[in-house]
Amino acid sequence: MTKLLEGKRGIIFGALNDKSIAWKVAEKAAEQGAKFTLTNAPIALRMGEINALAEKTGSAVITADATDMNDLKALFEKSQEELGGKLDFVLHSIGMSPNVRKGKHYTGLDHNFYAKTLDVSAASFHKVLQTAYEMDAINEWGSVLGLTYIAAQRVFPDYNDMADAKALLESIARSFGYHYGVKRKVRVNTISQSPTPTTAGTGVKGFDSFINYADSMSPLGNADASACADYCISMFSDLTRFVTMQNLFHDGGFSFTGVSEKVMEKF
Amino acid sequence: MTKLLEGKRGIIFGALNDKSIAWKVAEKAAEQGAKFTLTNAPIALRMGEINALAEKTGSAVITADATDMNDLKALFEKSQEELGGKLDFVLHSIGMSPNVRKGKHYTGLDHNFYAKTLDVSAASFHKVLQTAYEMDAINEWGSVLGLTYIAAQRVFPDYNDMADAKALLESIARSFGYHYGVKRKVRVNTISQSPTPTTAGTGVKGFDSFINYADSMSPLGNADASACADYCISMFSDLTRFVTMQNLFHDGGFSFTGVSEKVMEKF
Amino acid sequence: MTKLLEGKRGIIFGALNDKSIAWKVAEKAAEQGAKFTLTNAPIALRMGEINALAEKTGSAVITADATDMNDLKALFEKSQEELGGKLDFVLHSIGMSPNVRKGKHYTGLDHNFYAKTLDVSAASFHKVLQTAYEMDAINEWGSVLGLTYIAAQRVFPDYNDMADAKALLESIARSFGYHYGVKRKVRVNTISQSPTPTTAGTGVKGFDSFINYADSMSPLGNADASACADYCISMFSDLTRFVTMQNLFHDGGFSFTGVSEKVMEKF
Amino acid sequence: MTKLLEGKRGIIFGALNDKSIAWKVAEKAAEQGAKFTLTNAPIALRMGEINALAEKTGSAVITADATDMNDLKALFEKSQEELGGKLDFVLHSIGMSPNVRKGKHYTGLDHNFYAKTLDVSAASFHKVLQTAYEMDAINEWGSVLGLTYIAAQRVFPDYNDMADAKALLESIARSFGYHYGVKRKVRVNTISQSPTPTTAGTGVKGFDSFINYADSMSPLGNADASACADYCISMFSDLTRFVTMQNLFHDGGFSFTGVSEKVMEKF
Repeated sequence: MTKLLEGKRGIIFGALNDKSIAWKVAEKAAEQGAKFTLTNAPIALRMGEINALAEKTGSAVITADATDMNDLKALFEKSQEELGGKLDFVLHSIGMSPNVRKGKHYTGLDHNFYAKTLDVSAASFHKVLQTAYEMDAINEWGSVLGLTYIAAQRVFPDYNDMADAKALLESIARSFGYHYGVKRKVRVNTISQSPTPTTAGTGVKGFDSFINYADSMSPLGNADASACADYCISMFSDLTRFVTMQNLFHDGGFSFTGVSEKVMEKF
Repeated sequence: MTKLLEGKRGIIFGALNDKSIAWKVAEKAAEQGAKFTLTNAPIALRMGEINALAEKTGSAVITADATDMNDLKALFEKSQEELGGKLDFVLHSIGMSPNVRKGKHYTGLDHNFYAKTLDVSAASFHKVLQTAYEMDAINEWGSVLGLTYIAAQRVFPDYNDMADAKALLESIARSFGYHYGVKRKVRVNTISQSPTPTTAGTGVKGFDSFINYADSMSPLGNADASACADYCISMFSDLTRFVTMQNLFHDGGFSFTGVSEKVMEKF
Repeated sequence: MTKLLEGKRGIIFGALNDKSIAWKVAEKAAEQGAKFTLTNAPIALRMGEINALAEKTGSAVITADATDMNDLKALFEKSQEELGGKLDFVLHSIGMSPNVRKGKHYTGLDHNFYAKTLDVSAASFHKVLQTAYEMDAINEWGSVLGLTYIAAQRVFPDYNDMADAKALLESIARSFGYHYGVKRKVRVNTISQSPTPTTAGTGVKGFDSFINYADSMSPLGNADASACADYCISMFSDLTRFVTMQNLFHDGGFSFTGVSEKVMEKF
Repeated sequence: MTKLLEGKRGIIFGALNDKSIAWKVAEKAAEQGAKFTLTNAPIALRMGEINALAEKTGSAVITADATDMNDLKALFEKSQEELGGKLDFVLHSIGMSPNVRKGKHYTGLDHNFYAKTLDVSAASFHKVLQTAYEMDAINEWGSVLGLTYIAAQRVFPDYNDMADAKALLESIARSFGYHYGVKRKVRVNTISQSPTPTTAGTGVKGFDSFINYADSMSPLGNADASACADYCISMFSDLTRFVTMQNLFHDGGFSFTGVSEKVMEKF
């Protein structure tokens, strides 16, 4: 049996530390035979522990600001050089809201911050795709994934303006997925993951009780980062070639549960 | 029988000329007894014929850039002064993409333009709502509407980055609708209208054949601007008080038609 | 100002007593100038108080089993005779699950009962539409409404097999809405209403605490039967002519709220 | 590398001949190390070529009418005996409409046939799940799949009453997925596949031109039966443990394409 990602090359954005979903994806992609580069913003590289991951998975680390088209171009060039050919997969796991960080309420946003939230958390996905598309850097049947959250569909008050960013991200996945599919049979999807206690997640107000709520509402309980990484592997593999432009819930059934018996016990 | 909007006060954004949906809404709102101010950006006021509408409906025209919080604040202050009290309805009919205007393809966007598209076409809706919310300018059970298009859900290639803007707009309606509902029982919805030959619509490439396609696909045919205005009136009225955070398709059935027999005749 | 339903004729199914949504619709339709017949199954007529409503609204009562094509044919014939012409609106407010009544759990259904649930609560809607279609009994731009519940989209465990019936009902609205729209410009929609303490609703286990849950989750609170009737009136009126094949949430924002702050207080 | 389904046991419904999706699933499941039984209705067993598949995959064939609870009970008993333990996966690929076969239009259905369509194509899925649940026949993290079509969401006129059956099937997946997830961590999903030229598919009127339409509309083209089988394998594997109650589009992007440039060329 060959490994699922044998011979495949990729770029993984957003592995900060071993709680990160991107970190788990890197570990599992390596186990499945993939080669890839790791990338993050300069500040995240300083704060995080990515070098340990790079060593463990035999990957190069390339600094890039995902909102900067020049950085992205250099990243794709270096990655192809480093890996010896075009890419087969890309994971975009990037999100940040200055409004959340500064405690601005959704009804009283700083609109410069809002533009920043949208740029970092959503437009960066378009920029990554545009860079790859213009350089023709991804092989046919390549697979690009973004990570998202169900706040794109329904309101979770504390998720604040990240909800809007995720709705935008998912729209970009559909729109670019259409064009990239037609042109080069590259597929683009988002995975909508259970709330996950990553470093990013824990910045959100009341996150612990929210994790409990989501867990109580999900028939299988919350999906963890490791299970999410498994799902990403399946989406990078050849088993899912005709899945594109989708938003895929990986959440233990939360998305289609109106109310659970566990939650009703509180009423 | 009292008129449907008797005693109600509002602001109508985006009436450019008599092809505009906002123009028809103003006419019908006046017929139904509403009082309102009309507003548009300075350039639109110069290009358009809004003074004729103002005269016809007995409305004041107030210039405002809907992306500028100061302009919006002044608009809400003057409107309440002019109309003699808090507002009951707001129509946001604003959209513009420099990428579309300049012929940039979705896979090769100018990202400064993209930020502009999102700001003008979507963030402006948040700014309008934030202004009203912070000034407490809307009465309980007030109704705020944005106009959108199904490209927010599915890809229509020529709609370009306006698709992403509409997805963002609809997300804002949900998010702000939650908070404004909890705080002041104000409801926020979007109406997703058939492609309409307004001045804005006709800027989109291949628009005429697209109108035909949509008409062939819709069991009732395309909805026109006048019918859309009727629907807006129903959403401003007290008949629809518990409808909020919704995206409402007004499209002759297009949205839930997978394929029509008329379209299949071409295959 | 003319009344909203002046000159319109209809049939209203399912008014049992003054808690029924159909009852409120009848009252408001009469106020808005409509003429209509009232109908219900023989047993419901015996149990309920429909004669008082008939008197109040000046309507004839016609007994019909909505699962019986012969009864439906007679109903449409008599209604047109009684009202003096073709119909403009129909309200289908019918639902019943023997599995719920007999306390069968969803995982241990009696499948004969299940077939009955589907026939009474969903297929009856198809039969009503088929009868009207074959008799050409509805005028152009006529409006047919079914009442449904969000359990069609997400699981509410105690709603049991009625969830499946509502999913089927909504599918029928789309499918028949397409054909009836193409053929005669008749529109077909469903309204997805907040849980409502009608006689039917109160049969469901744990209904009171569920009402509280839904109310806590909805930014505007639960919509009541009277508000639902207002919404039905808007959908029967000429203000909504191009809305068809839709499922319309009338629920105070419940459907797009992932979690409310009120609900989070319990966690 | 271990095979993806090593050590897993299952039941595959609906393999008629080598065009069937279920046939491809059986072939690929065997390649991935799974053991399973094959089952079909008596008439399908006579018409089809299942014995060749059974031989190729080393599987037993067990006759069962999927609408008959006794047959299903015997099937699950014999399958567990034959395979030596509880099951890990079930594929339900069953659909049949007497209305389609007899050329009844959707607006003039035979309602006895309609009940049959619903029973065979949808209620059978509930019966399969109920049988497994009551016998506790599926291991934790087991995976149950039904095959469906996007006509459950949008109208494709020639798909007739099968659209309603698929909407019902998807509702059953959600409802049962909730209960089975809570009780035993078994997950239940549906895959919504491109139109596929199987023996069942080709019974539908105008199927060839419809295949062309769907192919023109899908950025990646239509997914074929073999690719669908790959996707089923991923859903039976441990890579997708937290995906449940979902309807997963496997359609080359059709579901989120509003219109393609290829289709627009016809207008």
